[in-house]
Amino acid sequence: MTAPLFETICFVGIGLINSSLARAVRKHGLARRLVTLDADPEACRVALELGVTDSAFTDPAEAVSGADLVVLGTPVGAMEAVALAVAPHLKPGAIVSDVGSVKTAVIRDVEPALPEGVHFVPGHPIAGTEFSGPAAGFAELFQGRWCILTPQAHTQPKATAQVRALWEAVGSTVEEMDPNHHDRVLAVTSHLPHLIAYTIVGTADDLEGDMQQEVIKFSASGFRDFTRIAASDPIMWRDIFLNNKEAVLEVIQRFTEDLTALQRAIRWGEGEVLEKRFTKTRAIRRAIIDAKQDR
Amino acid sequence: MTAPLFETICFVGIGLINSSLARAVRKHGLARRLVTLDADPEACRVALELGVTDSAFTDPAEAVSGADLVVLGTPVGAMEAVALAVAPHLKPGAIVSDVGSVKTAVIRDVEPALPEGVHFVPGHPIAGTEFSGPAAGFAELFQGRWCILTPQAHTQPKATAQVRALWEAVGSTVEEMDPNHHDRVLAVTSHLPHLIAYTIVGTADDLEGDMQQEVIKFSASGFRDFTRIAASDPIMWRDIFLNNKEAVLEVIQRFTEDLTALQRAIRWGEGEVLEKRFTKTRAIRRAIIDAKQDR
Repeated sequence: MTAPLFETICFVGIGLINSSLARAVRKHGLARRLVTLDADPEACRVALELGVTDSAFTDPAEAVSGADLVVLGTPVGAMEAVALAVAPHLKPGAIVSDVGSVKTAVIRDVEPALPEGVHFVPGHPIAGTEFSGPAAGFAELFQGRWCILTPQAHTQPKATAQVRALWEAVGSTVEEMDPNHHDRVLAVTSHLPHLIAYTIVGTADDLEGDMQQEVIKFSASGFRDFTRIAASDPIMWRDIFLNNKEAVLEVIQRFTEDLTALQRAIRWGEGEVLEKRFTKTRAIRRAIIDAKQDR
Repeated sequence: MTAPLFETICFVGIGLINSSLARAVRKHGLARRLVTLDADPEACRVALELGVTDSAFTDPAEAVSGADLVVLGTPVGAMEAVALAVAPHLKPGAIVSDVGSVKTAVIRDVEPALPEGVHFVPGHPIAGTEFSGPAAGFAELFQGRWCILTPQAHTQPKATAQVRALWEAVGSTVEEMDPNHHDRVLAVTSHLPHLIAYTIVGTADDLEGDMQQEVIKFSASGFRDFTRIAASDPIMWRDIFLNNKEAVLEVIQRFTEDLTALQRAIRWGEGEVLEKRFTKTRAIRRAIIDAKQDR
């Protein structure tokens, strides 16, 4: 057993990611004390019952006043309010980090809310499932996954190093990135796919009654996979799209142009256009398997 | 061991589906003799080597002349040519079936090619993986899955019953359906999802070099699932889209309208539109899990 990286960590918002991180921190002995802050008393009760925390608070002052690290794990649209609520109670020298799926908007919202002498290290673990809530968490979620940190030029290097050490200790590989670049990459790899999945499942949901029943009954592998993605937390995803608007709108535009081209090829029976496109996409799958991201 | 359902079955085209069906037929003792027909000598060699057939032929006459059941398993665009090639050599009273993912076009192409006294029972097992070729097959592929048969009013009931018995013996639940209706349902559950997956992976493939590398590196769960779907056989899918044109174009249109509505909601910051839509889609996932189609 190595010495803990932190004395006290406070997890703000106990959803899938923070409850998984809390379990992993406990499993690896990375903090002496785990605390949670959640406005919902029921979430506090569940967090205590699941044993993912030592103390669960609904009051920001009680929750964060002793914390060396505070991890914001709410939907990104709530980060500003949460930062404002905890800010007056943060310990001088405390580190604040987050696990939000967009980084530019979170930095814009959180950083100005924090007092001098508190270090903000924005982060995003590339991990998750379609399940949400504290009970869905598990300590191994981050094992073998990437965690992207987007520190600013003025971020204290020691604070960044400590957050990095935490993610590495729970099994992740950490990469630092410009927040704008992060948001553009994630718009393609995660945000657009989720929007498309939500759309296609919604399209099916709008079908007449008997067709809809049969779509469910005969949901072949394609559609089934989409419904899994489209079962992700609605509030979390609403906030992601609203807070990564430019990058998401840009990739929707590209996607729509490409879909229109295929639609046209189908209409005019241009088999060679379809075949060429479908053959190219196999290469990307191969690259992902080679990059060991195929799980 | 029950008596075999057929004396000799000939599998035409030894891809994922037919090689899986051949394995299942052998495993359950459903035919005394298994024969394959494939224009590619290499496919014949592999089929023999894998033990999925007793004899492998490149010549239609040799392959089908003794067969009681002939299962067409080529891409749907090749079905007409295959039917014309085997027709003169079919035994009187033989049953011809197929495993194509579209039914109206296959009936249009195959039925007129077959001689009097041969019974055509169109079929479509709702099963598959993203892998293709004979080596990818496995006997359990159809276990617990649906198989849709689309017999015509004039189809001999006994022939339909025999094909039904075969699919039930390999573990599937058989449902009879109008071919047009089949094509509309599958356009939503399978064809559109595949087209979308091919599109989104293609969109990523077109990104500038460094972005593309990072998309692969950080492919989160959404995109990764799409690349799996987009790794499916290009020729097979080209033919599906070309042969289910009307139904596919109709669902693309609905999908595009729905995507445009979400795109607009993102642009104008209409969070309640997004949240409402994302919440609705969860119900469909729940229904699919309840229908035990979630694998």
